[in-house]
Amino acid sequence: MNSSDLVIQSDSLATTQRTQIKRLPQRGDYDRTLIHQILDAGLVCHVGFVVEAQPFVIPTAYGRVGDRLYIHGSPASRMLRTLRESVEVCVTVTLLDGLVLARSAFHHSMNYRSVVIFGKAEIVEDATEKLEALKAFTEHVIPGRWVEVRPPTPQELAATLVLTLPLNEASAKVRTGPPKDDAADYELPIWAGELPLRLTPLVPVPDPQLPPDMQLPTSVQQYSQGLAEATA
Amino acid sequence: MNSSDLVIQSDSLATTQRTQIKRLPQRGDYDRTLIHQILDAGLVCHVGFVVEAQPFVIPTAYGRVGDRLYIHGSPASRMLRTLRESVEVCVTVTLLDGLVLARSAFHHSMNYRSVVIFGKAEIVEDATEKLEALKAFTEHVIPGRWVEVRPPTPQELAATLVLTLPLNEASAKVRTGPPKDDAADYELPIWAGELPLRLTPLVPVPDPQLPPDMQLPTSVQQYSQGLAEATA
Repeated sequence: MNSSDLVIQSDSLATTQRTQIKRLPQRGDYDRTLIHQILDAGLVCHVGFVVEAQPFVIPTAYGRVGDRLYIHGSPASRMLRTLRESVEVCVTVTLLDGLVLARSAFHHSMNYRSVVIFGKAEIVEDATEKLEALKAFTEHVIPGRWVEVRPPTPQELAATLVLTLPLNEASAKVRTGPPKDDAADYELPIWAGELPLRLTPLVPVPDPQLPPDMQLPTSVQQYSQGLAEATA
Repeated sequence: MNSSDLVIQSDSLATTQRTQIKRLPQRGDYDRTLIHQILDAGLVCHVGFVVEAQPFVIPTAYGRVGDRLYIHGSPASRMLRTLRESVEVCVTVTLLDGLVLARSAFHHSMNYRSVVIFGKAEIVEDATEKLEALKAFTEHVIPGRWVEVRPPTPQELAATLVLTLPLNEASAKVRTGPPKDDAADYELPIWAGELPLRLTPLVPVPDPQLPPDMQLPTSVQQYSQGLAEATA
C-alpha cells in the first residue's frame, strides 16, 4: 500500500441482511458516491410497499438532497396514504445501459446500473425542507429549471405531501462489458457484443398555447446538448 | 350507436380492487392490446414481492407469450425462491416517454406508459413451454436473435427456473401531451412543453474476442435501423 491508497477511502454504507447482495455479489456495491450517481442519473423510481400482504410497485418521480431521497404526490394517493404510516418500503432505480448479445441464447443479458433502498419514509413537515425537496424534484427532471418557472405557492405547498427516505440502507448493482459465453462457444461463428442504449431527448415540443416566437429556455438547450454529446 | 360501434369492441380486462386506478383515473386503461403493447415495448420489469412483511422490488428481464408474462433466473435467487412458493406478486413495467415542463414548478410531470400486473407466479415445468419462454426472452431482448444463436442445451434448460404470471389482472396508465398549467399561468412568459425521450441504440460494441471481420447480424442491424427511424 502506498500513500495514495490512504487517500482513496471508500465511503461505503454498512450492509444489512436486506441489502446484502446474494446473487452475483461481484456486481454489488455499497459505495455512497456510486449510489448517489445512479440516483441522480435516473428519472423514475419504483416504490414497493405492502397493503394487507399484497405488494404494490408504483413508478414515480423523485429527487435527492444529500443523504435523503424525496418523493411526493397527492395526500389522496394509495401509495402516499400507505407510506405516511411509516411502513417498510423498498425503492428501486434502474438504468438500462445496453443489450448484451451472447453467442448462446442462455447467456443473453443486459448491462444496467440499479440501486435498491430499504427503509421507512417520513413526512416532511418543515416548510424549508419541503421547499428544498420541491426544488430537488424540478431540478431532477431537468437541471436549471427551478429559476425559470413560477415557484410553488403556499397553497401548492400545502396540497403536496412530501415524504423522505434516508439513504443509509441501500445497495447498487452494476453490470458492464461484453457477454460471458461458455468457453467452447467462443469458437462459434456467431456475432456477440453489446448494443449500448441511451435515453435520448428528441426535438422539444412547445405547448400549443405558447406564443409562436418564444425561445427554448436554457435548461432545455443544455439538456439536449449535454445528452447529445454523451451519446456521440 | 351505429353498426361500426358493434365491431370495435374493447377487449378489456375486468377491474379488481387491486387494479382499480384511483388516482387520475382518466389516465387508466384495462385494454388488453394496450397492455400487451407496453409490455412488448419495455425491456425491464420491476418485480415486487414480500418476505416477512418486507417489500422487495427487483429489476429483471421478461418475455410475453400471449396472455402470459414469463420471468426467469437462477433457482438460487431470493426473488425466484420466493416467487416459486406461489406468493402474491406485483410486476410493473414503465416506459418513460418525455419530460413535461410546465410554467409552474408544481405542474412539472412526465409522459409515460406503465403496466401493473397482480397475481401469483407459477413454475413452468413443461419442457415445450419452457423452451418457448426462453425463446420469448431472447426475442424480447432483440427480435430475430433466436435463430442466430446457439439454442439452450438440456443442461441449461434444467438450470433455469422459469416462472409465469397470467396477464388477467393488470392495468395500464398513460400520460401524453403538454403540461396542464393553472389558467392564470398561461399568461406568464415562461416556455412550456414536452421534451420527448427515447431509448436509443448507440454504435454496437463487438465482443473483444470476435474475429475482426465479422459482420453485424441481421437482428442488430434491424434493431438499430428501426429505432433510428422511430426517433427521427
